[in-house]
Amino acid sequence: MTEKRLTPLAASLPATVPFVGPETQERARGSTFAARLGANENVFGPSPSAIKAMERAASEIWMYADPESYDLRAALAAHHGIPSECIMVGEGIDGLLGYLVRLFVGPGDMVVTSEGAYPTFNYHVAGFGGALVTVPYRGDHEDPEALVARAAVVGAKLIYLANPDNPMGSWHSAKTIQSAIERVPAGSLLVLDEAYVELAEDGVAPAWDVTDSRVIRMRTFSKAYGMAGARVGYAVGSPEIIAAFNKVRNHFGMNRAAQAGALAALADQAYLEQTCRNVADGRERISQIAAQNGLAALPSATNFVAIDCGQDGTFAKRVLSALVSQGIFVRMPFVAPQDRCIRVSAGRPDDLDAFEALLPKALTEARG
Amino acid sequence: MTEKRLTPLAASLPATVPFVGPETQERARGSTFAARLGANENVFGPSPSAIKAMERAASEIWMYADPESYDLRAALAAHHGIPSECIMVGEGIDGLLGYLVRLFVGPGDMVVTSEGAYPTFNYHVAGFGGALVTVPYRGDHEDPEALVARAAVVGAKLIYLANPDNPMGSWHSAKTIQSAIERVPAGSLLVLDEAYVELAEDGVAPAWDVTDSRVIRMRTFSKAYGMAGARVGYAVGSPEIIAAFNKVRNHFGMNRAAQAGALAALADQAYLEQTCRNVADGRERISQIAAQNGLAALPSATNFVAIDCGQDGTFAKRVLSALVSQGIFVRMPFVAPQDRCIRVSAGRPDDLDAFEALLPKALTEARG
Repeated sequence: MTEKRLTPLAASLPATVPFVGPETQERARGSTFAARLGANENVFGPSPSAIKAMERAASEIWMYADPESYDLRAALAAHHGIPSECIMVGEGIDGLLGYLVRLFVGPGDMVVTSEGAYPTFNYHVAGFGGALVTVPYRGDHEDPEALVARAAVVGAKLIYLANPDNPMGSWHSAKTIQSAIERVPAGSLLVLDEAYVELAEDGVAPAWDVTDSRVIRMRTFSKAYGMAGARVGYAVGSPEIIAAFNKVRNHFGMNRAAQAGALAALADQAYLEQTCRNVADGRERISQIAAQNGLAALPSATNFVAIDCGQDGTFAKRVLSALVSQGIFVRMPFVAPQDRCIRVSAGRPDDLDAFEALLPKALTEARG
Repeated sequence: MTEKRLTPLAASLPATVPFVGPETQERARGSTFAARLGANENVFGPSPSAIKAMERAASEIWMYADPESYDLRAALAAHHGIPSECIMVGEGIDGLLGYLVRLFVGPGDMVVTSEGAYPTFNYHVAGFGGALVTVPYRGDHEDPEALVARAAVVGAKLIYLANPDNPMGSWHSAKTIQSAIERVPAGSLLVLDEAYVELAEDGVAPAWDVTDSRVIRMRTFSKAYGMAGARVGYAVGSPEIIAAFNKVRNHFGMNRAAQAGALAALADQAYLEQTCRNVADGRERISQIAAQNGLAALPSATNFVAIDCGQDGTFAKRVLSALVSQGIFVRMPFVAPQDRCIRVSAGRPDDLDAFEALLPKALTEARG
């Protein structure tokens, strides 16, 4: 039975889930995964001081969080050398993207993204009635020039660009990104998703310019800071854009312990650097495992590696299914030609031991 | 400078905050509150086993939460004796109300609530372009009959009714609520906010009937379970309505530690019962303090008490300001005639000692 009282827009939406969670898959297969390398989580987790801060906050959880996230915003402002009023803290980048789309995109408004880029952004655009226009990846990279050009042609309200990219792990230089920002057409806003940027080398993130209202940048504690389950992201932009979030956001939506954890995580930059080294080691190991099996791993500036399985999406899907059925949770890109790859998180040595042990079997199964 | 790229609806919205948080007030006054009794928080906090569960989960926070909240929904289903598919877990009732309004209310759609009832619901209605119609309280109670009658006249999509009520603490019997449900007009949905219902006596909550699509009920771990800062609420309704949340919700929006804490809190019903006794003691103590000062406390089925300051809203505001300036954080209803009251949470003995010590001074200051 359909629910007739929904708005026409809501009635038209499918009750889809952008991603099926690993727990759902574990329930379906009747056992837990031996290695959880599919959800772009950072297995190295947060700084011990962040864990302590969250433990301490557990006994204070009777209090609502500060709806202004004042302390966290102040610390982020100091860290980045930008004013607090250019920062909005929210329930992960996913939550912030939902608010942003709601603010800028009404029914029929055009939005540009890459074919095969972040599905949750697309979900929000559809959810507010926006019309999505895509441009293809170019050599496994998002194509900033084409995105901006397409936005000018269709009069897009938003342009989505992730740097580094998910699901391919590729990246552009700060110069290339800055050049795209300079060419954002009037009336459009570039959503620069930098979820993975702390894991990239220097020279990937443009310098901050919070006077530039052509771009809003998304950052998170879910990836390099290892706190995906806490739900803390932040947007950085011009004060006018940032203030607009107060029109629609769930003001008391933040978890109090998560705020405390993020504050402590930010303060421990030495741990972040260690994580970056651990992740780099994991990426290197994944490349070696791929090579041992005659496959090529794509260069990555993130905490995951896309492995080119050497055939089409159907074949990669078979490899993925064989891995999943043997207890290795991985995912893969959604569209061709990126879907020739599987995507594997930079795990701990034992996670990657398990992957190394099972990949040959999975390839044999997929080929057979 | 206004942001011209916003949707017309977003441009029309004020960047307001439904409530100014106590931390904001503390920053403004330059010192912390001696007693935090204004935000309808439960100072007795969660079960020790819930705190332990959240502490344990802190070191697993690198994983996203299960987007289905499967275990928590299963436990809630068993607890209430209803199917899991009739339960949607979300980021507090505030978050769930936002999704619900988005699903049912488009620009110009009518919504009925009580004059002076929950501002955050009104914020969501305005945020999606709905038109709010109010009916007055009747003897400090919401008026279910008038709400439903008004909904029939204006063709309301949603009717908001809190039982027990916030900010007055009053309540209706399950029979009265059931009778209102029976008279919800076709095309309308009753949003029954039961945030405080575990703190009420038996006979306030109607029996569950998840086949009845005229009502959706909102419950939370923020109040009786003492976990406001965790952000865990749930909606109970017919499977069709519950499934519709999947069209718009932030699927990976839950904090993983909060899920674990809620699961443990639900399992410790003995602690919940102790909290209910503590809260009842606190209510009784507030009534005594009010009486000592020649004021009347209203009967309450919640964890707060409205104290009638005996004059108008201007006077009550002066009492409140005097209390706040002396370090006692309380709030008050927004509209007449309810705004003759201040609203005080059932605190621990030392919280209420501080309130008792300062109320006479505050009244003298307000009268002077």
